Amino acid sequence: MKLYSSTRAPNPRRVAMFIAEKGIDNIEQVQVDLGAGQHRGADYLAKNPFGRVPALELDDGRILCETRAICSWLEGHAPEPNLMGDGYDERAFIEMADRRIELHLFSGAANSIRHTHPGLAALEQPQFPDFGAVQAQRMRETAQWLDRTLAAQPFVAGQRFTIADITAFCALEFARGLMRFRPGQEGMAHLQAWRDRIAERPSAAALG
Amino acid sequence: MKLYSSTRAPNPRRVAMFIAEKGIDNIEQVQVDLGAGQHRGADYLAKNPFGRVPALELDDGRILCETRAICSWLEGHAPEPNLMGDGYDERAFIEMADRRIELHLFSGAANSIRHTHPGLAALEQPQFPDFGAVQAQRMRETAQWLDRTLAAQPFVAGQRFTIADITAFCALEFARGLMRFRPGQEGMAHLQAWRDRIAERPSAAALG
Repeated sequence: MKLYSSTRAPNPRRVAMFIAEKGIDNIEQVQVDLGAGQHRGADYLAKNPFGRVPALELDDGRILCETRAICSWLEGHAPEPNLMGDGYDERAFIEMADRRIELHLFSGAANSIRHTHPGLAALEQPQFPDFGAVQAQRMRETAQWLDRTLAAQPFVAGQRFTIADITAFCALEFARGLMRFRPGQEGMAHLQAWRDRIAERPSAAALG
Repeated sequence: MKLYSSTRAPNPRRVAMFIAEKGIDNIEQVQVDLGAGQHRGADYLAKNPFGRVPALELDDGRILCETRAICSWLEGHAPEPNLMGDGYDERAFIEMADRRIELHLFSGAANSIRHTHPGLAALEQPQFPDFGAVQAQRMRETAQWLDRTLAAQPFVAGQRFTIADITAFCALEFARGLMRFRPGQEGMAHLQAWRDRIAERPSAAALG
């Protein structure tokens, strides 16, 4: 298998952390240079017409795109440790938690950064900075909800580490790097403590 | 079970169509009046802190939110007909198709409508009309990709009807109603023919 990826982008990091948690070691990594526009070149568009990373090329040549779909495939391919739910009931509740993080925390951070950061002006054309500012506010509201959630349970989806923790951690690391967001400095002690615990996992350290 | 829903909103329609395809008939429907702001009231926020519809209240009192997570639960509860994939490989590829529709077609239409339609000014504050216009353009680019896809295969995810067809149909109906989008009038004959075939399914007619 080959994973087309880009080390610094947040969605590839989600898949990299998922793979590290699973201990899967037979995936060749191919770097796609976003800064050089390689994701918009004909070769890559033939693999993913949406020009996004990551994309997983299976051994039979089929190409699977979309971060969470790639994780779903890997969960079936390497079931242990379970990260997406055991049985349909738990799977659905973990999916709920993961989507809340994706749709509100991750998207809020990504939209804020894409529409306000000078370094992303070439990727997001045109930028709408006022829209980005509202998205940053929504990201913080979601972070406050997550802080309250983590006051009552140790992990994002409940009592154990799941894909929802990976999504939330990668969203926070993205916001930490490009929005200088530090939950602890904004009164979110539970979220900060959770983030610091997750950062100690070998899978997080593996992200570099 | 109780489904908190709002007939005209596009996400509740996805779940309603999914339920109709499954033939599940033991779910009580509770209407949430978005126009009156009922989704922002304390009673509803106690059920879903994000104030979104739909939400599924299970018989044991737990509440499951997020459209696709609700569908995942119902797929496990009522496995036939299969709409989300049989085995992890097919499930992942259907998830890829469903997410492409969600992230590019559905979100493009929803963001365009929320940021430009006068009727949604109360729901989306502030509106950014220029951002909405760019989103409308992205929705059309995704529709053109889907038109090409449907020239080569009968359904959104491949050879059979799946949840990805439901997501795409509800996105197009939303865009049809509030953006006056007609694929056939914009040179997308395959997409129009697919839409017209899906509209004949009893599950689509059931949406009213």
